[in-house]
Amino acid sequence: MSQPIKIMGISGSYENDSANSRLIELLFHRCNDLGAITYIWDNKNKPLPLVGEKGSWDNVNVKEFQEMATSVDAFVLSSPEFHGTMSGVMKNNLDWIYSKHCSGKIFGLMSTLGGQSTSNTLNHMRIVVRWIHGWAVPEQIAVPNIKTAFDESGLIIDVNINERLDKLAESIIINTNKLRR
Amino acid sequence: MSQPIKIMGISGSYENDSANSRLIELLFHRCNDLGAITYIWDNKNKPLPLVGEKGSWDNVNVKEFQEMATSVDAFVLSSPEFHGTMSGVMKNNLDWIYSKHCSGKIFGLMSTLGGQSTSNTLNHMRIVVRWIHGWAVPEQIAVPNIKTAFDESGLIIDVNINERLDKLAESIIINTNKLRR
Amino acid sequence: MSQPIKIMGISGSYENDSANSRLIELLFHRCNDLGAITYIWDNKNKPLPLVGEKGSWDNVNVKEFQEMATSVDAFVLSSPEFHGTMSGVMKNNLDWIYSKHCSGKIFGLMSTLGGQSTSNTLNHMRIVVRWIHGWAVPEQIAVPNIKTAFDESGLIIDVNINERLDKLAESIIINTNKLRR
Amino acid sequence: MSQPIKIMGISGSYENDSANSRLIELLFHRCNDLGAITYIWDNKNKPLPLVGEKGSWDNVNVKEFQEMATSVDAFVLSSPEFHGTMSGVMKNNLDWIYSKHCSGKIFGLMSTLGGQSTSNTLNHMRIVVRWIHGWAVPEQIAVPNIKTAFDESGLIIDVNINERLDKLAESIIINTNKLRR
Repeated sequence: MSQPIKIMGISGSYENDSANSRLIELLFHRCNDLGAITYIWDNKNKPLPLVGEKGSWDNVNVKEFQEMATSVDAFVLSSPEFHGTMSGVMKNNLDWIYSKHCSGKIFGLMSTLGGQSTSNTLNHMRIVVRWIHGWAVPEQIAVPNIKTAFDESGLIIDVNINERLDKLAESIIINTNKLRR
Repeated sequence: MSQPIKIMGISGSYENDSANSRLIELLFHRCNDLGAITYIWDNKNKPLPLVGEKGSWDNVNVKEFQEMATSVDAFVLSSPEFHGTMSGVMKNNLDWIYSKHCSGKIFGLMSTLGGQSTSNTLNHMRIVVRWIHGWAVPEQIAVPNIKTAFDESGLIIDVNINERLDKLAESIIINTNKLRR
Repeated sequence: MSQPIKIMGISGSYENDSANSRLIELLFHRCNDLGAITYIWDNKNKPLPLVGEKGSWDNVNVKEFQEMATSVDAFVLSSPEFHGTMSGVMKNNLDWIYSKHCSGKIFGLMSTLGGQSTSNTLNHMRIVVRWIHGWAVPEQIAVPNIKTAFDESGLIIDVNINERLDKLAESIIINTNKLRR
Repeated sequence: MSQPIKIMGISGSYENDSANSRLIELLFHRCNDLGAITYIWDNKNKPLPLVGEKGSWDNVNVKEFQEMATSVDAFVLSSPEFHGTMSGVMKNNLDWIYSKHCSGKIFGLMSTLGGQSTSNTLNHMRIVVRWIHGWAVPEQIAVPNIKTAFDESGLIIDVNINERLDKLAESIIINTNKLRR
């Protein structure tokens, strides 16, 4: 029997109770149901330093971040869109992982927007994933009007986005199984 | 007689002695010769916090950064390319300025690469500039093989890139004058 | 008194009665009200050959297209989004104009989508405009759900998009006047 | 024993003796050595009409193009970069295939440039591939200074690019085998 798939979630928001972290949780519930083991990186309690900051190259959080990245089979990225692309928090996180940690691994991409939908953040993250030799699955999710996207129990209201969450989880699991052989 | 143009330089490297800061200096010498007053934001001594970090919304460096942005007529962005797009340092800096600081102002774009040339960082910064309602001039510069791009006195060796620096400086000055009327 | 501004409209649809041609018309009514003279290139009756097709380099439509491009002060591009970017019709049209026709001229960008909004086509056209040394104004329009976007008289129903048409027209006129001095 | 992999090559140049067609041939020699069966679409003798052109929806070349796309397991796209993105010929070709022809299939991407290297065309084709639910492998090739890239026998001179051709061919074969299971 094959080992369970391990997936690391990286949010582009600093706060752990952000919409992006919540989106990762909702996706990860589905991944767990499909047998995966999941981890969400804790930006707030283990923030990564800006690349080049004093001591950044020996930072213990960076080391732990890279070890988690090395240990997993797949990644989920979820970022707010600021100024037409991913947040600085997301990009700085991604700056700390390289192809040696990610090559040949599957990535699932999600993005949240204050207003109407765009795909800029998804597109730019897809390019980053290629540059670290990862594989972004075709299924991806942009959630517009994020302030009103969740109901009181923290679930996504839009039926179409819930279906997309199902399909994204499925695609990550199926294709990680295919590619890691 | 019109007021001299004020330009703010923002680097995507943390260190002030980085190749990107040096590129901004070289461009700014030319801008100064054309009558402009220039300022380089000091990432090292006045780092901007990650957006959402505790206290980030009241951070004094952020306030000073935004005041400088408000006071200038034009911007120069120079970023290393990490993983196929601008650095996290650059993106986090850009996350702290909005259209209210930048609308209708001119931006000049530069990027440095470890290996061969690409335009990813320039393209993605161009999209960010549009999202904050700025105007990126068509002239732009990507400097490949950055480790060997400078001579011992800190000048760019490649003749073509030096010409591009001349043209970029000229375009920033001329078009800022045209647009700010 | 300054000469009236001349603007050339280029659609990414082959049919002259397409949504994209109609969008250009609606924008041009506003430009006309602001004193501009406008021309829409007729893809159907004067199609441009694929670049490299036999006889394409001497094609009379190409010649007329390039002459019109040379004669105008500004451009409006409106393309459907096919497969996450501008249509082949739009790209082939753009392949026939060069910086010698467009350098320093203003471009306004619009895009139509079958479903929800994205900015891919606008972003990729913005990059093309830079490559031919044009200036795409920050104002831009993506029209989602294009099949239901127009009322029976051929006007856009969405109030917000109508305002964007006003602002795009205004920006093209004002900034062409500024830049062409 | 598994069926041999079938791959369809699509060039962004109209002429069959173009640098892009030659690049596909060089890649396909390697794919053939690895057991694949390869086909190059003949743009010159079976040109696809512009989308929307009279009769385009019933065009026999389009039908044959779509049937070939349906029959293969993988695709190779090779386009010149015109004005900062793929050619109109490439985009119009891609406009004629949909997710029903390509979903879940592997794509290899190559691009040629007149001058220095950029990745715009590769990036934009990667986005298109995602939109038709394909999988672009991380390995990709941009060939700069294309006029002097080939020797007299039609082989690529640059050692690094030859290695990249080896790796791209290998990746297409290995990953098509993994994904199509």
